[in-house]
Amino acid sequence: MTTPLRLGIAGLGTVGAGVVKIVQRRANLLAMRSGRPVVITAVSARTRDKDRGVRLGDYAWEDDPVALAKRGDVDLFVELMGGSDGPAKAATEAAIAAGKDVVTANKAMLAIHGQHLASAAEAADATLRFEAAVAGGIPVIKALIEGLAGNEVTRVMGVMNGTCNYILTRMEHGHLGYDEVFKEAHELGYLEADPTLDVGGIDAGHKLALLASIAFGTEVDFAGMEIEGIERISIEDIEQARDMGFRIKLLGVAQLTGRGLEQRMSPCLVPADSPLGQLEAATNMVVLEGDAVGQVVLRGAGAGEGPTASAVMSDVMDIARGSRISTFGQPAGSLSKPAPAKTAAPAPFYLRMALQDKPGALAKVATVLGKAGVSIDRMRQYQHSHQPTAPVLIVTHKTTREALDKALAGIDGTGVVDGHPVAIRIEEV
Amino acid sequence: MTTPLRLGIAGLGTVGAGVVKIVQRRANLLAMRSGRPVVITAVSARTRDKDRGVRLGDYAWEDDPVALAKRGDVDLFVELMGGSDGPAKAATEAAIAAGKDVVTANKAMLAIHGQHLASAAEAADATLRFEAAVAGGIPVIKALIEGLAGNEVTRVMGVMNGTCNYILTRMEHGHLGYDEVFKEAHELGYLEADPTLDVGGIDAGHKLALLASIAFGTEVDFAGMEIEGIERISIEDIEQARDMGFRIKLLGVAQLTGRGLEQRMSPCLVPADSPLGQLEAATNMVVLEGDAVGQVVLRGAGAGEGPTASAVMSDVMDIARGSRISTFGQPAGSLSKPAPAKTAAPAPFYLRMALQDKPGALAKVATVLGKAGVSIDRMRQYQHSHQPTAPVLIVTHKTTREALDKALAGIDGTGVVDGHPVAIRIEEV
Repeated sequence: MTTPLRLGIAGLGTVGAGVVKIVQRRANLLAMRSGRPVVITAVSARTRDKDRGVRLGDYAWEDDPVALAKRGDVDLFVELMGGSDGPAKAATEAAIAAGKDVVTANKAMLAIHGQHLASAAEAADATLRFEAAVAGGIPVIKALIEGLAGNEVTRVMGVMNGTCNYILTRMEHGHLGYDEVFKEAHELGYLEADPTLDVGGIDAGHKLALLASIAFGTEVDFAGMEIEGIERISIEDIEQARDMGFRIKLLGVAQLTGRGLEQRMSPCLVPADSPLGQLEAATNMVVLEGDAVGQVVLRGAGAGEGPTASAVMSDVMDIARGSRISTFGQPAGSLSKPAPAKTAAPAPFYLRMALQDKPGALAKVATVLGKAGVSIDRMRQYQHSHQPTAPVLIVTHKTTREALDKALAGIDGTGVVDGHPVAIRIEEV
Repeated sequence: MTTPLRLGIAGLGTVGAGVVKIVQRRANLLAMRSGRPVVITAVSARTRDKDRGVRLGDYAWEDDPVALAKRGDVDLFVELMGGSDGPAKAATEAAIAAGKDVVTANKAMLAIHGQHLASAAEAADATLRFEAAVAGGIPVIKALIEGLAGNEVTRVMGVMNGTCNYILTRMEHGHLGYDEVFKEAHELGYLEADPTLDVGGIDAGHKLALLASIAFGTEVDFAGMEIEGIERISIEDIEQARDMGFRIKLLGVAQLTGRGLEQRMSPCLVPADSPLGQLEAATNMVVLEGDAVGQVVLRGAGAGEGPTASAVMSDVMDIARGSRISTFGQPAGSLSKPAPAKTAAPAPFYLRMALQDKPGALAKVATVLGKAGVSIDRMRQYQHSHQPTAPVLIVTHKTTREALDKALAGIDGTGVVDGHPVAIRIEEV
């Protein structure tokens, strides 16, 4: 019980430095809780000479993370470099090949190579865990794999990109356009080097793919996900959705239905008074639904030094305590091949269009909707003094995307609407 | 890996029947996830002949739960009888003495005998877990012990009695008095046989004592908790608090400060737009705060067959997977003796009083507050046509309970207030 658990940490950015701080400052607490000392023996990063605000002098230094992963004095390889391929993947594979356990915060690597890495870890009798890869400090992987272990999971949802939620709520509160707030977020350093990862929904999509694999016992299938970013969300839609009792979120939804595995990361309307609707700024939220437990909602910081390091340490402490759980909650070989649903479950939709001020214009739109089988739940036409068109908002009853697309094409054909109507799914949360 | 985990279940009420259903219906899923079959070999309850909606014919029957706990064909004893002493405690002790693991939903037993039982389990090399004892289906014990294992926990808060939250929110939405809603809750079967356990804050207090032990590494100290129920909360306070931007919750707060361990279960005002303030009906919420992770909020069903059985199965599956974590997150012998704080941390307070319609009345109250060192943040005096007194509401700045009590005594002495002022703590969440 008193053999120390020896960590080798590759990547000393914000999160890496945060992990080093916890291991140093909370040594007694960690040993008390896990029954054994948790120590760092070696570290690796791109640049050695850089002040990271932590003492590193006691640890061996490796320029090459692969060399770090293979060291005889490292029991647990902590991968905090990022990137789906390259050094992160090479070092993770090397650690597993050497029979070492691995803890990683790397959502991109697992979303693409999760099945391969989980299988390799099992073959080597090593443990591979990734709590920090999804929703930062929220212990959601643990809640889903372990807390809901007695449930058939029915649906998983989440707002898991803090930057997107910051942009959407900032637009609303500041009555600002997307481009303006995007620029502001960029200046505040909230965006990834490639901002498409954030605002294009890819980062959040990686996270959802990992949750879906655990929830439904399927191989990770990032390629099978429907992804749409927030770039086309306008302040008009945010404000008019709010008027009708909704807020717009970049929402991930995964569910397994008779039509197959549905994985969507896209802007959705959710009721303003629901927990998801009430989520402000960069906070993350994950909603887990199981047949026994009902709905469990988890909320917390989705990024940042402390929260992400806390999640890394959760995995480290599990391994120190001797827990050996499969990467995706069941043996990698038992995960089934996902059969992606061709179409999403029916849902109500929000529509906004610029209706020309002509007699019978609204009747034409209503007729087209009716012919496509799309029925109207609520409709509002706004005042349009001095404008040639009037904004018309429609909330439909539940409909399929096919019927809706048919209706939208029909509306384009009426000639009474300027431009194309905006259509956003309303998720029942 | 294919040796089955054999459960003996004592107590076949709602939760017990729920656990039997999951084990029967989800046999394949449980075996896939844990790597071994999870089976029931024997059961026990007070009455044998009763339709519980589940097949029990395949299991051995024991009238005596102690005999069940000692059976050679039981690996894991599942205690779902309830009651702090009596058969539940005797059977738990018997199971531990026989070296068996125990999973229990019994908050009362652990709040009183937790230290003794955790020590006994450790001495016998047995595992004793209790996820279902706190906040039903929410995996909060797991989140706190494992998810936040790298954190120094700074504060734990929770709304953990669904019945009390139902009563408080029903009073507000129905504009109803406490007695009326209490009667309604009773008729709906929402109250324990002894309703004081619910409305007196004892049930929620048991839960908070368990969370505090884990959070601060101290022996469970239910006796050291300050407990106040919701019996004296009036519809006037609920509505006037709401007017000032607050809602009243039966809130548990535990924190370790320089003054010692503070454990309070009492009605508090919280901001109406905070996650705790937005909590409706019987839903539970727990807020965990750690030095690294910041604030994590968990929300879900706090009671009921499915949610509670889900939590029991979380512990069962952990044990099936080979996890062996100390009952309170660290060895029982390493838990320190709690030093209860003599006074609660300073806080703002909400005061409501019936001020007589006399010249200088308000000045007298303000003078008394000032002399006691209690300063006023906000004040409202309401219209009082045809009434000899006017309702006056005050929100104070942060103050100690001692200063406040001095001020309240002073107000009584002015002779310008009818009855005693109501004073409710405002918790900064």
